[in-house]
Amino acid sequence: MPPSPFSNARLSVRRRSPGARETAGDWDDPETLVRFARDLDVLTLDHEFVDAAALAAAEAAGLRVRPSAATLRRIQDKLVQKETLAAAGLAVAPFRPVATAADLVAAGAAFGWPLVLKLRRGGYDGRGNRVVHNPTEAAPAIAAFAGKPGGLYVEGWAAFRRELAVMVVRDDAGQIVAYPPVLTVQRDNICHEVQLPCGAADEAVTIARRAAEAFAVVGALGVELFELMDGSILVNEVAPRPHNSGHYTIEACVTSQFENHVRAVLGLPLGDPSPRVAAAVMVNVLADADGPGQPAGLAEALAVPGVALHLYGKAAARRGRKMGHVTATGDDLAEVAARARAAAAALRFGEGA
Amino acid sequence: MPPSPFSNARLSVRRRSPGARETAGDWDDPETLVRFARDLDVLTLDHEFVDAAALAAAEAAGLRVRPSAATLRRIQDKLVQKETLAAAGLAVAPFRPVATAADLVAAGAAFGWPLVLKLRRGGYDGRGNRVVHNPTEAAPAIAAFAGKPGGLYVEGWAAFRRELAVMVVRDDAGQIVAYPPVLTVQRDNICHEVQLPCGAADEAVTIARRAAEAFAVVGALGVELFELMDGSILVNEVAPRPHNSGHYTIEACVTSQFENHVRAVLGLPLGDPSPRVAAAVMVNVLADADGPGQPAGLAEALAVPGVALHLYGKAAARRGRKMGHVTATGDDLAEVAARARAAAAALRFGEGA
Repeated sequence: MPPSPFSNARLSVRRRSPGARETAGDWDDPETLVRFARDLDVLTLDHEFVDAAALAAAEAAGLRVRPSAATLRRIQDKLVQKETLAAAGLAVAPFRPVATAADLVAAGAAFGWPLVLKLRRGGYDGRGNRVVHNPTEAAPAIAAFAGKPGGLYVEGWAAFRRELAVMVVRDDAGQIVAYPPVLTVQRDNICHEVQLPCGAADEAVTIARRAAEAFAVVGALGVELFELMDGSILVNEVAPRPHNSGHYTIEACVTSQFENHVRAVLGLPLGDPSPRVAAAVMVNVLADADGPGQPAGLAEALAVPGVALHLYGKAAARRGRKMGHVTATGDDLAEVAARARAAAAALRFGEGA
Repeated sequence: MPPSPFSNARLSVRRRSPGARETAGDWDDPETLVRFARDLDVLTLDHEFVDAAALAAAEAAGLRVRPSAATLRRIQDKLVQKETLAAAGLAVAPFRPVATAADLVAAGAAFGWPLVLKLRRGGYDGRGNRVVHNPTEAAPAIAAFAGKPGGLYVEGWAAFRRELAVMVVRDDAGQIVAYPPVLTVQRDNICHEVQLPCGAADEAVTIARRAAEAFAVVGALGVELFELMDGSILVNEVAPRPHNSGHYTIEACVTSQFENHVRAVLGLPLGDPSPRVAAAVMVNVLADADGPGQPAGLAEALAVPGVALHLYGKAAARRGRKMGHVTATGDDLAEVAARARAAAAALRFGEGA
């Protein structure tokens, strides 16, 4: 397992009673993890980078871990993730493991150019990915990942028309609730905006349900999809947790992705995922520069009607860091999008507050 | 100031950054209060029992206190509260201060029987109130409050048809947003159920706005109203904080009472209080007996569709203690009420979980 992409390996939990427990330590260390979780009802995750072997040790110690170590093992290695999706009969871009520049050149001959070279472990928001446009770029691309543990794989380029996402939540009994498909707009490889409705085919939901079954997920699964020019849909990747593409569900749906994740991992009945509104738009708020964790423009953002503002309370802004998001809801997608964008644009991190 | 009706005088605050500050001490002690609040942006309250003199000391130390000490001073003494409402031209039941049984008998002669004898300070949920049905009960009633500090007053009986409430939120500039009137159903002097819509006259909102102005409230004000047999409306009492009758706004309105309270006390623009749904019903969940803080029936409650469950995380249940509430929303009031009541009835505190 490579080093965690997060700088602080800190375990924390919200207890039944007010007040949280916090343990500073390495969450990939089984002993620390088991000591932390010993008397909890359930151990769950808000990111997928806790080593599956540590989670398996927690399970062996009798803890309830949801999603399970087996699910995490099949997802956190992206090559195994792709293999699992393909084995379930779900369409994905062509892929194969690679180790050398020669492997890359051979993949280009098989899949066509460009290729996307990826770390098998630890990547997110475009980190750990690199586009390789032609055979000349093969050796430098391999060299760029030299020393990174966990190995590499490569995917063929999916010439997609747009990116979609579907949140599903699955319980221990295999019941699944599915949120409606949304359009996700990326900027610099980071989710920038999410739009409901998006007019996606029902097939998007069917695919997301089958992905949840393929990984035997218990809890939330974010399923990122490519809609190709011909309307067909490929799975890009999955994340076994509440997902940025589902933040809109807080305001827009009867039961949010967060509540349904908690219901699922606790073995409680799943809630209704239906939308309460005709249209919702979520816009991420990223810092433009390093600076304090408080934004300028708060009053201006809150003056936009019908917008819910979520600030994450991070102590400091760093250029490109997600500091919060805004969600607008209403009847008309274009009008809703205009409000969400206006509120997000008003918030400025990194220039003092 | 009499002893606080709450057993633990504990000050706490949610900081900008994750993690809360907590000071154990007497919140009526100005020195403790100022030390606690020294570097906060604003000091606000979630109940009205912090001594106005302590808040005035905090203001004198340069702290921003919202609602202000002056507002609290006029509300926490219920006789002064009634005088303020009457002086603003708002209709209230007849009232006067009393000290002796003879005073009570004289009030009965003036207002008619029964009377409601009340502690001027510290009462809530019917505590500190006593109905006096006739002159014979006057002496025992006075004796029942012997030794309670702060004095007594008496009100004439308001023969109301039903009880209503209106939440308003006022900012420093005097702008007010008003939530729609709701019907409140009391049981054993405690709010049991809240229903939207309730068909109340627009006058209810006008009265609530004028009450917020009369007390110069900054933040939320819960205005409890009596609708009399002839349709006229009296003010019962006010509470300068988010209020049980406004909990339904979390799910049912564009901006909740909690968010608008925070916006107001921070000097940020107020949000839209409009309902997002045609009907909402909130039912309080009280413990039937002493016991653990975890309820039985959680899965049963969550199996009711379209209900939001709020558990307060209290460590222990005591008979009659508010442990949480449920809110259902939808199109039809009767159908929504049935769902809210079913979910609330499923939750059982005090019988082990």
